[in-house]
Formats: sequence, C-alpha cells, structure tokens
Amino acid sequence: MSEQTLHPSPPFKRMALIGLGLMGSSLAWAARRFELADEIVGYARSEQTRARALELGFIDQAHQTAHAAVEGADIVILCVPVGANAAIAEEISTFLLPNTIVTDVGSVKSAVIKDVGPHIPLGVHFIPAHPIAGTEQSGPDAGFADLFQGRWCVLTPTDNTDPTALKRLEEFWRGCGMFVDTMTPQHHDLVLAITSHVPHLIAYNIVGTAADLEEVTQSEVVKYAAGGFRDFTRIAASDPVMWRDVFLTNREAVLEMLGRFTEDLTALQRAIRWSDGKTLEELFTRTRAIRRGVIDAGQETDARDFGRWGKSEEDVS
Amino acid sequence: MSEQTLHPSPPFKRMALIGLGLMGSSLAWAARRFELADEIVGYARSEQTRARALELGFIDQAHQTAHAAVEGADIVILCVPVGANAAIAEEISTFLLPNTIVTDVGSVKSAVIKDVGPHIPLGVHFIPAHPIAGTEQSGPDAGFADLFQGRWCVLTPTDNTDPTALKRLEEFWRGCGMFVDTMTPQHHDLVLAITSHVPHLIAYNIVGTAADLEEVTQSEVVKYAAGGFRDFTRIAASDPVMWRDVFLTNREAVLEMLGRFTEDLTALQRAIRWSDGKTLEELFTRTRAIRRGVIDAGQETDARDFGRWGKSEEDVS
Repeated sequence: MSEQTLHPSPPFKRMALIGLGLMGSSLAWAARRFELADEIVGYARSEQTRARALELGFIDQAHQTAHAAVEGADIVILCVPVGANAAIAEEISTFLLPNTIVTDVGSVKSAVIKDVGPHIPLGVHFIPAHPIAGTEQSGPDAGFADLFQGRWCVLTPTDNTDPTALKRLEEFWRGCGMFVDTMTPQHHDLVLAITSHVPHLIAYNIVGTAADLEEVTQSEVVKYAAGGFRDFTRIAASDPVMWRDVFLTNREAVLEMLGRFTEDLTALQRAIRWSDGKTLEELFTRTRAIRRGVIDAGQETDARDFGRWGKSEEDVS
Repeated sequence: MSEQTLHPSPPFKRMALIGLGLMGSSLAWAARRFELADEIVGYARSEQTRARALELGFIDQAHQTAHAAVEGADIVILCVPVGANAAIAEEISTFLLPNTIVTDVGSVKSAVIKDVGPHIPLGVHFIPAHPIAGTEQSGPDAGFADLFQGRWCVLTPTDNTDPTALKRLEEFWRGCGMFVDTMTPQHHDLVLAITSHVPHLIAYNIVGTAADLEEVTQSEVVKYAAGGFRDFTRIAASDPVMWRDVFLTNREAVLEMLGRFTEDLTALQRAIRWSDGKTLEELFTRTRAIRRGVIDAGQETDARDFGRWGKSEEDVS
C-alpha cells in the first residue's frame, strides 16, 4: 500500500478543470479543502453547468471554451466522458504552457492515451490517471470533497514520463485522500473491465430486462425491489454518456471479460437445470471470502446492507 | 398500497420459530417490540444456534426438535432454507393444534406449497408468506426488529384459505411494519425470479469470474472494487445454503428469466462489438427511470451511493 503522505510541494497555481460534473466538481471541492491549488478555473460545454458551478462556488472562473480555460494553468484535468477527449485535446494543444501537467479521470486508459497523447506538445507532461471513486449521481451538484478518501488512483506513466512531474501528480492525488498505484494502460483496462465495466453492463442489462417483461409489471418490479434488484438499479442509474463511451473505448477488454462471465453463467445455468446443488453451494460459499477481502481492504463498509439500517441489535432488542 | 393498520387482534399466545437465523431472529425481535406474541419459542438444528438465541434473549425457550417447538403454538413460522421444509413439515404434522396458523418466509412459494401442503392436517391454516426483506448477513446474531419496516410481504392464499386466519396473518405482518400483498404462488415465483433470484445469481457469478482470472490478481480485484464490483460482493455474500435451495426449487422461473437476461446481454455485447453507441445510451438512459421509481416507492434510499458518504455538499463545501 502506498503511504498517505502530506504534500510537500507547493499547491498548483492554477488548476483548469475541463468538465464540471461529478468528477470535476468533486476535484474542485477536494482541491479547495486540502489546499491543492491557489486558483481553480473550469470549462463546461453547457452554459447552465458553468453558471451552476459559479453559483455553488467550487470554481473561481468559468470559461466558455476549453482553450481559454487552460491558459496559464499549471495543471489541466480532463473530466469529460472519454469519447470527448480527442476533440478537447486538439483544441487546447497550442494553449498549454511548458511544464504543465495534463491528466484525466477517465475509466479507460489506452483510448485516452491514443486520443490525447498525439496532441500534447513537447515539454508538457501528460500523465493519465483514473481515480477509482464515484457515485451514481452526475452533474455539478453531485460533487463533494470526500469522494476520493481512502480509494485508489491508478496512474499509467511511461518510461518517458518526467519523474518530477509524476511525483508531483502522485502527491496531488494523495492530497485528495487517495492511495496511488501505477500500471500499464493495458493492464488497467483489463482490471477495470472486470471490477467496473462488466458489472455496470450487467446491472444496466438486468434493469432493462426487468423493465421489458410482459408477465411482470414495472410496478411489481419496483415494489419488490428490496429482494436484491434495487442494488442493481443504483449502478444502472450512472451517467449514460460516460458509460456509453467506456464500452465503446474499452471494447476488447470488456468483450473478453464478458465472454468469461457468460461462460461461467452458462455453467451455473446448467447446474440449476440439472439440480447440481453442490456446484451452486460451492460457488456461493467461495464468493463470501471475496466480500470479506473487500471489507478488510477498506474498500467497503461492514455495515449490514450498506448501512441502510443504521441501528444495531443493541438498539433494537 | 395496503394500509399500515394497528393490529386489532390480540397477540398470538405462543409463536414457534423453526429456524433461528436472520429471518427467525428478526421476527422474534419484531414480535417482541411490537407485542405480537405473548411467548416465543424456537428450534434450530445446531446446539450452538439455540444457545446463542437464548443468550441474545430473543426466544423464551429453545427446543431440540421441531415437533417439540410447535407443541401448543398458535402460530408456527418456518424460517429454514426452503429445501428443509418438507422434512420439517412431516415431522411437525401430528403435533399441530387445530386453528394454528402455519406460515413461512421462503423466497420460493410453489415449492413450499408442494413440500409443506400435504403434511398440514385439516383444521390447521397453512398460508405461505414471503417477507421481501433481508441482508447479506446470516445466523442468530444477524437479526433486528427493523428488518421488515416499509417492505412488502407477499401472501399466497388459495380459495380454500380461511378468511379469518388470513386476516389475522395479514395483521401480523403489518404489525411487523410490512405492507401486505396477495398473489398466486406461480406469479410470486416469476416476479421474484427477476427481482431477486437472477440478480443474486449474476452477482455470485461475476464475483466467481473475477476470482478465477489469471491476468488479474485477486488482490487487484479487491483493491479496485470501488468501481462497482463491491456492490455485487455484498449480494454474493448472502447465505449459500438458502440460495442454493432457491435456485433448486424455483428452477423453471429462474431459467426463463435467465434466458431473457442472456438474450438481452447478447444484444448489448453485439452493440459494443459494432460500436453501436445509440443502443447503449438509450438503454442506459431508460434504466435511470426505474431507479427513480424504486426510490419514489420508498424501497430504496435516495442517499448517494447508499449513503456510504454521510455528508452532503453543504457539509463539505
């Protein structure tokens, strides 16, 4: 585990956030709270989002174009759906100052490198990042400073990455409360395909399947959601455009992991059809241990049912 | 929606709980808190569970056999994995008093009727029930009185069900804090297959798939679980024997719904392979509305990420 260190570097002078949704606004709140930047400016495509960001007060200035937002910035963070990165990178390319750090928060890393990398001028440090944290909510009102606390941020530097810039960026993410890991973009995309992308896909899928049934009404699906379904609806409420882009840009890894998932599901289906209780019970017992691991790693609460009930036995007995 | 009424009937004299895990212990706590039974006795197969139940104090007496537990009871509630019902029913059959209500908490209803029904003597009222509430925890320590609050309980009476007994049982479940619905066992099993059984199956499955990968270590799966995976680990931590029995006893409905799920997933897989962003975005937008429905129906919290973060923007800005 990486150490949680205080950030010895001075704060960034001017942080430019491209995109002011859940991630952009959370980063702004975190940077303010932990004093990671003297000034925070932002760009959002929609006038409404820019106005709301100023009203909430998490940015000092809003800009109508991405290139205006990055002028004079010593750190630029791309917080848009990954499909929007290429056009943004092209637009800001000639406005980036030497030594500026350009990073992002995208859930896919190979595609971001392919889309953004070619537009980064010599002397500017492009270091892709993925803070693995989020909620099902989106937009400028969704952000909060605590989002990153205790979660992992994956950086995908290359052999050519400037070590000073890398260290500075690691400190920034640690300053937000995160643990930092580095890996190759290809490995990142594979790991996230199984821990995030395929889980989202099957959650979207089952909510869609349930909505389309003829024999069961939507009102029944909703009323009886407490049997497990509602957990899936949370994930399936995540931002549609962001997730569309994830699947389009991490296609190979998602299809590979989806193939594994389907193969395993077919085996379970067969076990059910042939009343093979042993196979079912063995799997169901084994998966409990993984849950324990996630809790022990501090990546999940131990509270029953996510703490939907706040009371303990002592309170109610 | 059913009304939440106070229970005008006097409490049951003696409630016998067969099985003292999450459901049995929660029912005992609820019955105590809401004064639904004068005396609560219980049976559990394991000596350890019986001792723990007495120690926690949610039952007045523990019995070493199910037939001893039901003697003199005016309500008997089967709280064991559904696969265990047939043997229990056969054992208690001749010990049931006339007018006693026999009910259960099983997640499958057709199988319970098939397994228990033939053993119920004339004059005893067998009315299957499924309180749709639960957590991923199990055992006698897992119970709490609030488990049933605001959730739905489905009863599956027949035309021959005694109306007085049915009314009394409805009052009992309302007394626990539940809304009550009635439907046919076949329809119940279909509704639950999509809202509970298949969601559990795919959660177990993806956790198993992730655990078996060669390219991604288990430690990586655990560290980066915050991207969505951890929600599935919660469901996949549910009681293995209970869930084995659900799949073995609701086979037809589960296989039917699983077929639909797989068909839809194949369509999504194809959309990803062919970069059909429109299909993905349309589904991902549609599923948000279902989430809203579940929240509006009071079956889910509106708190971001299940309230894993307790603070609002106001607190952190």
